[in-house]
Amino acid sequence: MSFIQVPKNSHFPIQNLPYGIFSTVQNVGLEPFYSLETFSQPLLTPSPPLLQPSPRVGVAIGDQILDLSVLAAYNFFQQGLPELPHALHIFSKPTLNAYMSLGKSVWSATRKFLQHLLSADVATLRDNTDLRHRAFVPQATARMHLPADIGDYTDFYCSREHATNVGVMFRGKDNALQPNWLHLPVGYHGRASSVVVSGTDIRRPAGQRLVSKENPTPMFAPSARMDFELEMAWLVGPGNELGEPVTIDKAKDHIFGMVVMNDWSARDIQNWEYVPLGPFLGKNFGTTISPWVVTLEALEPFLVNGPAQDPKPLAYLQESGPTAYDVHLEVKIKPAEAQDFHTICRSNLKYMYWSITQQLAHHTINGCNLRTGDLGGTGTLSGPVCQFSPFLCGLDSGTDDSYGSLLELSWSGSKEISIPRSTSTPDDVIKRKFIEDGDSILMTGWCEAPDGSYRVGFGECVGKLLPWRERGHMQG
Amino acid sequence: MSFIQVPKNSHFPIQNLPYGIFSTVQNVGLEPFYSLETFSQPLLTPSPPLLQPSPRVGVAIGDQILDLSVLAAYNFFQQGLPELPHALHIFSKPTLNAYMSLGKSVWSATRKFLQHLLSADVATLRDNTDLRHRAFVPQATARMHLPADIGDYTDFYCSREHATNVGVMFRGKDNALQPNWLHLPVGYHGRASSVVVSGTDIRRPAGQRLVSKENPTPMFAPSARMDFELEMAWLVGPGNELGEPVTIDKAKDHIFGMVVMNDWSARDIQNWEYVPLGPFLGKNFGTTISPWVVTLEALEPFLVNGPAQDPKPLAYLQESGPTAYDVHLEVKIKPAEAQDFHTICRSNLKYMYWSITQQLAHHTINGCNLRTGDLGGTGTLSGPVCQFSPFLCGLDSGTDDSYGSLLELSWSGSKEISIPRSTSTPDDVIKRKFIEDGDSILMTGWCEAPDGSYRVGFGECVGKLLPWRERGHMQG
Ligand SMILES: [Ca+2]
Ligand SMILES: [Ca+2]
Ligand SMILES: [Mg+2]
Ligand SMILES: [Mg+2]
Ligand code: NI
Repeated sequence: MSFIQVPKNSHFPIQNLPYGIFSTVQNVGLEPFYSLETFSQPLLTPSPPLLQPSPRVGVAIGDQILDLSVLAAYNFFQQGLPELPHALHIFSKPTLNAYMSLGKSVWSATRKFLQHLLSADVATLRDNTDLRHRAFVPQATARMHLPADIGDYTDFYCSREHATNVGVMFRGKDNALQPNWLHLPVGYHGRASSVVVSGTDIRRPAGQRLVSKENPTPMFAPSARMDFELEMAWLVGPGNELGEPVTIDKAKDHIFGMVVMNDWSARDIQNWEYVPLGPFLGKNFGTTISPWVVTLEALEPFLVNGPAQDPKPLAYLQESGPTAYDVHLEVKIKPAEAQDFHTICRSNLKYMYWSITQQLAHHTINGCNLRTGDLGGTGTLSGPVCQFSPFLCGLDSGTDDSYGSLLELSWSGSKEISIPRSTSTPDDVIKRKFIEDGDSILMTGWCEAPDGSYRVGFGECVGKLLPWRERGHMQG
Repeated sequence: MSFIQVPKNSHFPIQNLPYGIFSTVQNVGLEPFYSLETFSQPLLTPSPPLLQPSPRVGVAIGDQILDLSVLAAYNFFQQGLPELPHALHIFSKPTLNAYMSLGKSVWSATRKFLQHLLSADVATLRDNTDLRHRAFVPQATARMHLPADIGDYTDFYCSREHATNVGVMFRGKDNALQPNWLHLPVGYHGRASSVVVSGTDIRRPAGQRLVSKENPTPMFAPSARMDFELEMAWLVGPGNELGEPVTIDKAKDHIFGMVVMNDWSARDIQNWEYVPLGPFLGKNFGTTISPWVVTLEALEPFLVNGPAQDPKPLAYLQESGPTAYDVHLEVKIKPAEAQDFHTICRSNLKYMYWSITQQLAHHTINGCNLRTGDLGGTGTLSGPVCQFSPFLCGLDSGTDDSYGSLLELSWSGSKEISIPRSTSTPDDVIKRKFIEDGDSILMTGWCEAPDGSYRVGFGECVGKLLPWRERGHMQG
C-alpha cells in the first residue's frame, strides 16, 4: 500500500510503477531548487537546461506522477541506490533510453527502492510536505511524450486468430494460414518516424487504391477503409551487437516493458500496394502507443501458459514455463457524432500464439542488431470466438467482439457494427464499417490480481482521426 | 581545376566534392590549434571533446580529404560564408545530419565557397603550407564512418528489368510484373540499425529455410544462397512533418545526395519468410553503403531522360524534364581463393523506371514523415539486356552481365558464373552461384563528363562475407 491514494480499479497501484516521459508548464520540481537549504549535498552539475520545463522521467502512481528527476536532484538515488549512479543525468533525459539501457538488475533495484519510498509506512517522502509538493505532479496537469527514441520499429503478426480471420477473408477457410505461419513469428519492418504518443491526432491518408472490386483501376483518393489494429508492443532494454543473436533463454533480459499500440491502417491502400514486399503507405502514416511503459517485472505475476504450439518450434524458438501474459484488452470507439466511448472489442494478450521472447529471439537469429528503445509490435490481438457463448468454451471473452480490427468486426465491410450514440440511449445507434472522420479510438489493457484487489494496467492509447486535407498538387 | 592533383579517372575532382564522416588516429587538424596565433578571432567554444580524434565532416578531393572542421576552426566560414553560421559546430559532428538539414541554398553556397578555396588560382589555402598540413588528410590514413544517423531506411523496387527478371523466375513470363508495379514505386521498410559503412565485414546469417524444393520442410541452417543487390540510395536533407506530403515539384529539395548500396540478401531465408508481409530476416543482417555522399548538385550535369512511363502515372507522380541520372555502375567479386576483383555486372542508374523524386513524393503522399538522414534505396539496379549485342540495342552495356544480383546472374542458381583466379590467368576460373565465405563484393559508380575530361564518382562500397558462427543454443 502506498501513502498515495490509489482507487481499487486504478491502473497504477504501487505494484505497477510504469515509466513515462512527461512535461509540465512549469518544471515545479526543479525550479526553486537552488534556494533550498535542506540537502546534504549540492546538486551534481546544476546546469541551466534543467531549469526549463522539459520532458523528464516519471513513474505513475494513482493519479499522480512521481518526478524521478526531482528525487535525483535531492540525491535520493545517490544515497539509497548505489546501483544507479548518474541518476540525475538519466532521469532528466527526454526519453527512457538511458535508463532502459541499464538492464534488469538496475531496473529491479530501482523498483524496490521506489516501492519502499512510496509505501504507506515509510515517512521520508510521506511526511515531507514540501518535497511531496515538488516531487508529485497530477497526471491531469502533465503532458505525456513518446517514452523512447525508437531506432527501429518491427511489427509482428502473432495472433493465430487474427491471421486466420484475415486468411479466411482473402484466401478461404482451407488456405487461411500461410505455410510459414506455424513455424515462425512472421514480422516486418514498420516506420519509426511516425510512431506517436497517445493523444496525437491522426490524419486520414490519401494514396493509390483501386476504384472498386468490380473496377480494379488505380486512382488517387483519401482512404475509404480506415482501420485500427489492437496491438501491444515491447521496448528493447539493452541491445545486441550486429552478428550476435540473442538466444531465447536470454531474450527476456533484453525487454524493458510493454505498451498498448494502435497500428492505424488504411486497408484499401495496403491492399493495392502490399504485393510482393509487404505493407508500406497503408501503415506508416501513424502508429499510436500508450505513454506508460509497464515493466516486465510488474507483469511477472500475470504470466500464464500460452497456446500449445503444434508443430513443435525449431530449437532456437523452444522455451519452457509460462511465457504468455494475462492482459485484458479493450477497444472503444467514440464516433464523431456520439457522446461516449463504447466498447467494440474485448481480447487478451494471453491468446497470442508466439510469445514476445520468441519474437525477440527470432528477430536476432540472423544476427540483426536491436538497439535500446526499439519497438516490437505483437500484431493485431484478436482472440478466440465461441459460436455459442464464451462460457461454453471456457473463455473470458469470446463472443464475436474478440476481433482486434474493424476489418474483422465488419468482416471486410460486409456488415455494419452498431454503436450507441450515448450510454443513456442504447437504442439510438450509429453504424460503422470503418473509421469515419472525427471518430476517436481508445485502447486499454490491464492485468487483474487473482483476488481482484488491484490491477496492473497500461492506461490509455487514444487517437482521433482527422479528415484528409486536400492540397493543390495532390489530385490524382 | 584544383591545386590538389586529381588524376583524370579519379572519382573526386573539384566538380564532385562529396561529403563524408572520417576520423584519424590523431585529430591532426585541431590538436595544435590552441597554440596558433594566426587567427583573427578565437575559436568559438573550444570545448575539450574537439581535441579527441573524433569523427568529423570532410569532403573528398583527389586522394585527400579536406577537413571542414579545421576550416571552421580557422574561421573560414565565418568570414566567407554568412549563410552558414555555427560551421564549427556543424562540421565537428559525427554525422552529416546537422549539415544536411540546412537545405539547398546553404549546400549550394558551401559548394561554391569550397570550389573557390580549392581552385588552382586561389592562394589562401594553396600557399599556406601550415594550414594545408592541418586541413588535408590523405584518404589512405583516414577511417570512414556512416555518413548519417539514419532514422528510417526504406528500400524501393524500381528497376523494371530486375522486377521482371525475378517475376519471370517465380511466376513465368506472362505474369512477371505484379499488377501494381507500373502504377507506383513499390517500396518497403528496411532495417536502419544494420546499415553499415563500406569496409564492414558481413556475417553469414542463419535462420529458417526449406530443406529443398523437393522437401519443403523448414529447418534451421546458415543461409546457402547468399546474394548482393546492386543499389543506389538517397539521403534525406530537410524532412517533412507528419501529415504533410511533399509534392513532386518540391521532392528534390528534400534530397541531399546519393550513395552506392549493397543490400545483402539471404535468398533462402527471404523466400520462406516473406509471405505475406515482405522481406525481414533475409535482408536485415546488414546493408552496406559507400561513405561519400555525392550531392544532387554535383550530379545535376548528368541528368538524362528516364524510361518512358506507360501507363501515364497518376498526377501526384507526374514530373517533367530529365529526371534520371547517368551513373555507370559495376559490381566486382573477389572470391576467397582469388587474387583480384573481377567485374561481374555492369549497369546504369538511368535505366531505373521510377525516379528518386517519384520515390520520395510517393513515400510522403499519405503524410508519412521523413526525417533528415533517412535513407531511400532504389532497389536492385539491373539493366536492359540485348540478346545480340549492346551495340544493336544502342545500349552502353547490356550483355547478360546487366544483372544486379547473383539471383539473376545465376538465374536462381541454375547456372554458374566464372571468375578468373587472377587477371593474369583468365582461363583458371572459380565458379560461383551464390556468395561463399571469404568472398568480397565491391560496387562502384561514376558519371563521366561528355568530353571524358573528368568523372564524378561514388568511390567504393565494399564488404567481405564472414562464415556463420555456430553457438551453443543455435542449433535447429
Ligand atoms: Ca499490425
Ligand atoms: Ca533491395
Ligand atoms: Mg501504423
Ligand atoms: Mg540488407
Ligand atoms: Ni533512429
